[in-house]
Amino acid sequence: MSEWSRRKHMSGKKYSSNHHVLYYECDKTQRMTMQMLLNLLIQVSGEQSNELGLTEEKMTEMGVAWIVLQHMFTVTRMPVTNEVITVETSAKQYNKFFCYRDFIVTNQAGETLVALTMVFAVLDIEKRKMTHISDEMVARYEAPLVKRPIRTPRPLLIDEEIVDSSTYRVRYFDIDANNHVNNSKYVEWMFDMLGADFLSQHEVKSGTIKFEKEVLYGSPVECQASFAETSDSIQTAHRIQSEGNVNCTASFEWSNVY
Amino acid sequence: MSEWSRRKHMSGKKYSSNHHVLYYECDKTQRMTMQMLLNLLIQVSGEQSNELGLTEEKMTEMGVAWIVLQHMFTVTRMPVTNEVITVETSAKQYNKFFCYRDFIVTNQAGETLVALTMVFAVLDIEKRKMTHISDEMVARYEAPLVKRPIRTPRPLLIDEEIVDSSTYRVRYFDIDANNHVNNSKYVEWMFDMLGADFLSQHEVKSGTIKFEKEVLYGSPVECQASFAETSDSIQTAHRIQSEGNVNCTASFEWSNVY
Repeated sequence: MSEWSRRKHMSGKKYSSNHHVLYYECDKTQRMTMQMLLNLLIQVSGEQSNELGLTEEKMTEMGVAWIVLQHMFTVTRMPVTNEVITVETSAKQYNKFFCYRDFIVTNQAGETLVALTMVFAVLDIEKRKMTHISDEMVARYEAPLVKRPIRTPRPLLIDEEIVDSSTYRVRYFDIDANNHVNNSKYVEWMFDMLGADFLSQHEVKSGTIKFEKEVLYGSPVECQASFAETSDSIQTAHRIQSEGNVNCTASFEWSNVY
Repeated sequence: MSEWSRRKHMSGKKYSSNHHVLYYECDKTQRMTMQMLLNLLIQVSGEQSNELGLTEEKMTEMGVAWIVLQHMFTVTRMPVTNEVITVETSAKQYNKFFCYRDFIVTNQAGETLVALTMVFAVLDIEKRKMTHISDEMVARYEAPLVKRPIRTPRPLLIDEEIVDSSTYRVRYFDIDANNHVNNSKYVEWMFDMLGADFLSQHEVKSGTIKFEKEVLYGSPVECQASFAETSDSIQTAHRIQSEGNVNCTASFEWSNVY
């Protein structure tokens, strides 16, 4: 068991919200898509921030904004169309530069469907640089200060010998209210390029996604992926590049659904 | 006033549902996108069908499926992030080949934000052809049979002299549980090609969208659009083509939001 999952018991103030899974949050197999699930988790963490009075407007007044650096998740099964799910979240701990937030998605029987940890940092809006996390930003989440950062897993490296590639273009509706390409779009591109045959026969079981540098509106984006097969699972490794920069790396583990 | 809106008083059994608008259903201006609103309306009409026992499974047993032929709408203002809206819907009337369904989206003060009418037909799944609407399919919606079809407005024709063009590709997550490109994707493409400068400064006020022929997964899709300006509004005309077929035509009226 990795360090980030062992530390699940360390937790701040809890917040939870129910959600009726809508058909348009699901793929053709009627399972919720990973990108829509990530959107929902961000929505729920935003609701907690609003409830605690730490709205985006409040952060903007302080000259800062939260940015997501990494997602790490395990899936027992994805929620399905018209299912009611509960999303529980809490800020797990923080240090000078990083804040770790846990999410547990359960069904109405209380069974865990998905567990996910996000790593956040704080951006100084004017300087466009990461800045220290202050007590004012995190005290109300009741997360403990733990000076040593959590060692988060790195995505598997892409196999340069067998890499596939597809080009995407950032569209207007990929941009969210923060004026950035929404995090979930990277996942949508990375999954899409695996193709219908693969996606309709496999379910993602775990993954880690690292965001390195923002993609800009209108840019052509190159998505690369390679496959590695073991006896009981398939792993894919991914890299997104644009204008000479690496924007995102990720790897996912898949199981065959048939 | 057009014929379809004059006939709003003719209505079957009503169904309504509240919805908390999520941030990921909104664009960078925090207004709900037209494609997400269309998705929500389809979700709500599906909920009514389920409540009345006319589920998709039941239709499939009868060898048929509903297909959407046209949307016609007027917007007072689009819903915004975290607003609670109410969607009310009813089957307005039907004839041998078409069923008309009304939707009214209101805010919590009861003010109408969006009014929309959809035209549906019934597909014989095996023959892949439109078939007669039977009493069994519509009786529970309590919509009156009115033999004469409603004359629905046609989209404005594109101006062939000044047309712009963009190419899209159908992605895996554009396909919904019916194994078709979700209707909302056509709207997303048509709006996206208008560009960030236009979309962030204009709000759609009305429109009509006609679906002619399904786009297939993996196909390159050519989206064309032309602009026409009058003293108080801008109109755009659209055409989507793939593999030599016209898949969709539409026109929208826009107002400047600043």
